[in-house]
Amino acid sequence: MKVSKVQYRVIYGDIDAMGITYYGNYFRWFEIGRTEFLRELGLCYRDVERWGFILPVTETFCKYISPAYYDTVVTIETKLAWLKKASLRFDYKILGQEDGLELANGYTIHACLDRDRKVVRIPSFLLDRLEGVKVLS
Amino acid sequence: MKVSKVQYRVIYGDIDAMGITYYGNYFRWFEIGRTEFLRELGLCYRDVERWGFILPVTETFCKYISPAYYDTVVTIETKLAWLKKASLRFDYKILGQEDGLELANGYTIHACLDRDRKVVRIPSFLLDRLEGVKVLS
Amino acid sequence: MKVSKVQYRVIYGDIDAMGITYYGNYFRWFEIGRTEFLRELGLCYRDVERWGFILPVTETFCKYISPAYYDTVVTIETKLAWLKKASLRFDYKILGQEDGLELANGYTIHACLDRDRKVVRIPSFLLDRLEGVKVLS
Amino acid sequence: MKVSKVQYRVIYGDIDAMGITYYGNYFRWFEIGRTEFLRELGLCYRDVERWGFILPVTETFCKYISPAYYDTVVTIETKLAWLKKASLRFDYKILGQEDGLELANGYTIHACLDRDRKVVRIPSFLLDRLEGVKVLS
Repeated sequence: MKVSKVQYRVIYGDIDAMGITYYGNYFRWFEIGRTEFLRELGLCYRDVERWGFILPVTETFCKYISPAYYDTVVTIETKLAWLKKASLRFDYKILGQEDGLELANGYTIHACLDRDRKVVRIPSFLLDRLEGVKVLS
Repeated sequence: MKVSKVQYRVIYGDIDAMGITYYGNYFRWFEIGRTEFLRELGLCYRDVERWGFILPVTETFCKYISPAYYDTVVTIETKLAWLKKASLRFDYKILGQEDGLELANGYTIHACLDRDRKVVRIPSFLLDRLEGVKVLS
Repeated sequence: MKVSKVQYRVIYGDIDAMGITYYGNYFRWFEIGRTEFLRELGLCYRDVERWGFILPVTETFCKYISPAYYDTVVTIETKLAWLKKASLRFDYKILGQEDGLELANGYTIHACLDRDRKVVRIPSFLLDRLEGVKVLS
Repeated sequence: MKVSKVQYRVIYGDIDAMGITYYGNYFRWFEIGRTEFLRELGLCYRDVERWGFILPVTETFCKYISPAYYDTVVTIETKLAWLKKASLRFDYKILGQEDGLELANGYTIHACLDRDRKVVRIPSFLLDRLEGVKVLS
């Protein structure tokens, strides 16, 4: 099972008055995670769109365990949780800098739409690469 | 049961290349919603912090039903879903401009912490006002 | 000379660890200001784009005088500073809640481009309305 | 003269409906740039704050030359433009991915304040390191 890892340094613009990352900014990290996951499979999301498909988020969740402080480097771990005909889910873990402590976890579910925003089957060029890394149940 | 309503106009800075609000920006709207909910109870979150308590988000969820387009005015509906000794949950609905169509819904769960980030009971000045509006089960 | 005014309440997601609005977020306020300015002239920026024109920012500036604190309501004042054949400039003032103190000021310069991102003359439907409110020199 | 370089990949959350980076998000990049500049001098901005000093932005400017597209990697170049008793200025260049084309440039001016937000001389631990890299005039 493939797990993609990418790092991000928390900036001042990410944090709030508590000195910790604003809860809404974790979803930017989830995006960074899944984009890297796809890139490691040779899939550029920009190309997915060029080929006429979009994968908008239909559902997301995040559990915050421990704060992500200013100027620390977090690791974003991403894996493919499941894959259906016209939708898929990514799971994420946000890990802390020194000790690899789990700071947060969550998921995003995506629908596969065409240019007219109609639900369509995930195209084969995408499906083939994703099937190779899907989680066995 | 109290439901707070507040409006927000989608700006260019909120949207992405699909011309619709970026999924991570809905969590700013949830914040606007719960702040107004508290304000209508005579509770300013700024004061909550001044009195030594913080209510960080420990869990959040959002389901995206229909896109929120640029320059439309969304309505954020907020209610208190439940209230425990040291935590509480707000539920949100995001409604569209003309037809009041439900664009998204979600929730945030908050812990009550003191200045040292230790979990504490929700203080009575907060609890008293929240209990008056809690959902009956 | 027309001056447009619109209000915005500072949220937790706007501020940083100093408890004040992150400097980069003022540019969202400038956008809110100029969109309202245009709307008051009967011009919806969404329509400008639909008719095939975009007005990207080519230059911006902001001077920060006094902090904009959490949960205060700022007033964004916008006026048209100048208007040329293919560009225009808006000036902004950010005013504080109670005393109307000037918290910041700045400007944005915009080019007029067509769909192919080529510089073009500002179209007459836009120019006519803007000329009526331009600053006399 | 020291020039610090750091890279950033443009995410979906950074761009707007034109498919290019929202003009207000460049100021996040400027922050990434100056933080790396200080870090290369052995100065962590987090420590500057711990020692009782803050360096809020008092003025900023950005000129946008060419768009920064989704999923491209930009390079942020930062240098110290000048250094006074109680203020300093950083200059930035944003460079494109393949050809190193200049996409934007700008600056930030910072005041040196103490914990009570009173203007103070830049402390020697900061001044000494910055003086070693200042631009000769």
